[in-house]
Amino acid sequence: MTAFDNGIALQPAGERLLRGRTVPEWANMVGPFGGITAAALLRAIELQPDVHGQPVALTVNYLAPIVEGDFEISTRAVRTNRSNQHWFVELSQDGDVLTTATAVFGVRRDTWGDTEPASPSVPAPAEVPVGPDKGPTWMRNYDMRYVTGAIPDAGDGESASSETTLWVRDNPPRPWDFAALTAVCDIFYPRIYLRLGRPLPAGTVSITVYFHADSDALAAQGDDHVLATARAQQYSSGHFDQAAQIWGTGGRLLATSHQIVYFKG
Amino acid sequence: MTAFDNGIALQPAGERLLRGRTVPEWANMVGPFGGITAAALLRAIELQPDVHGQPVALTVNYLAPIVEGDFEISTRAVRTNRSNQHWFVELSQDGDVLTTATAVFGVRRDTWGDTEPASPSVPAPAEVPVGPDKGPTWMRNYDMRYVTGAIPDAGDGESASSETTLWVRDNPPRPWDFAALTAVCDIFYPRIYLRLGRPLPAGTVSITVYFHADSDALAAQGDDHVLATARAQQYSSGHFDQAAQIWGTGGRLLATSHQIVYFKG
Repeated sequence: MTAFDNGIALQPAGERLLRGRTVPEWANMVGPFGGITAAALLRAIELQPDVHGQPVALTVNYLAPIVEGDFEISTRAVRTNRSNQHWFVELSQDGDVLTTATAVFGVRRDTWGDTEPASPSVPAPAEVPVGPDKGPTWMRNYDMRYVTGAIPDAGDGESASSETTLWVRDNPPRPWDFAALTAVCDIFYPRIYLRLGRPLPAGTVSITVYFHADSDALAAQGDDHVLATARAQQYSSGHFDQAAQIWGTGGRLLATSHQIVYFKG
Repeated sequence: MTAFDNGIALQPAGERLLRGRTVPEWANMVGPFGGITAAALLRAIELQPDVHGQPVALTVNYLAPIVEGDFEISTRAVRTNRSNQHWFVELSQDGDVLTTATAVFGVRRDTWGDTEPASPSVPAPAEVPVGPDKGPTWMRNYDMRYVTGAIPDAGDGESASSETTLWVRDNPPRPWDFAALTAVCDIFYPRIYLRLGRPLPAGTVSITVYFHADSDALAAQGDDHVLATARAQQYSSGHFDQAAQIWGTGGRLLATSHQIVYFKG
């Protein structure tokens, strides 16, 4: 069991109900890393005996911080069609709903395909040093190699661009699956840190992941680094957005993701 | 009452329950235009007496086609915090759930703000001709002026880019509000038509809207055209994504939006 497997471990706890537990290795500034929570919610669906197809879309809304201890995840198959299935999922502690998610699973078929944007032109993972050991605890569960936009140091000052691009894989290495791909979509520290050159209170309100890779594409990725890149578009009235791409070996887009982040300041 | 107002008209039908009705002016190829359905779901939340804050994020999942006739929308305030509120909404016909949505509303505060990408450099709306009268019925409810990427004609052939950029406002003109902004995020015909140069069966599975404009910014926009631009990133295994920006007068991002679309072929 790697740190990632521990973070998303779920036990049956009744009809459409699973029980998990926060683990200290995934601690963020407040509660656990949002990516591991999103991954656990996806995994809860994957564990349902009647799950139909593979993940296509996941939206996770963070309602309130999860505290240390047990949590329950309830899953509801809202509708099952021939080619897809729609889910609504809730994570709660002591009956208090703290996270919700909707997910679409779909039967994957061979069709015409294309990747429209060019993948970032960057050196290979082995040529990029592992980032400094800083940031919240959960970051130790990743091998992160920043190409651009590393966490700013005091004195770095403002930046005109919020772009961060890094090579990343689980630490210790672990073969990619849909849960791990979900978590890595949330790998980026808040874009506003980079723009303003300093940390400030910020937290994801809602994240959406679109899964472009099917299980074969994930198997082909093995446990190799993926190239993760993100930038914000608009900052206003206490929120900003983030658009992210997760590139696999050979310049294939494994996932695209978006989130809206609350900030103070 | 404009066509848009008719499309999102809802009547009280019980505790947390509203009733609407499909109108022929909003007909799409199958069922109503997804954007009007998304707008009605948002409006259902806005009509709740205990609604707290303004729209921040909305994700709508399309489970099955809505048929002609009445529908019901049930709303559930999953959690109300001091600075935001989380909703889960379901649209059904005869007890059959056909559309679901999650939404985050938030209290907007004055903060540091910035628009990071440059707005597209395009001629003013008056200098761009109104597009040809084609496409599904609902498109007549918009004044659409394509700058690039209009609906392809037979014989136009494939395109290397899926980008469409157009000036758009309601027809007849109607002041922008959050519901109208929601609908316009879904204004784009399927990107794969443009890439392949021909229509094929395709439909939105899930759409997310991030609202960057607050009510003041929308009031300032009046009923002027907004500049809407979209492109796809990845096409694979029967799905593609779409990333969209809705620009207001003066180069401000009013909304960013993403969707994942099913296609056959």
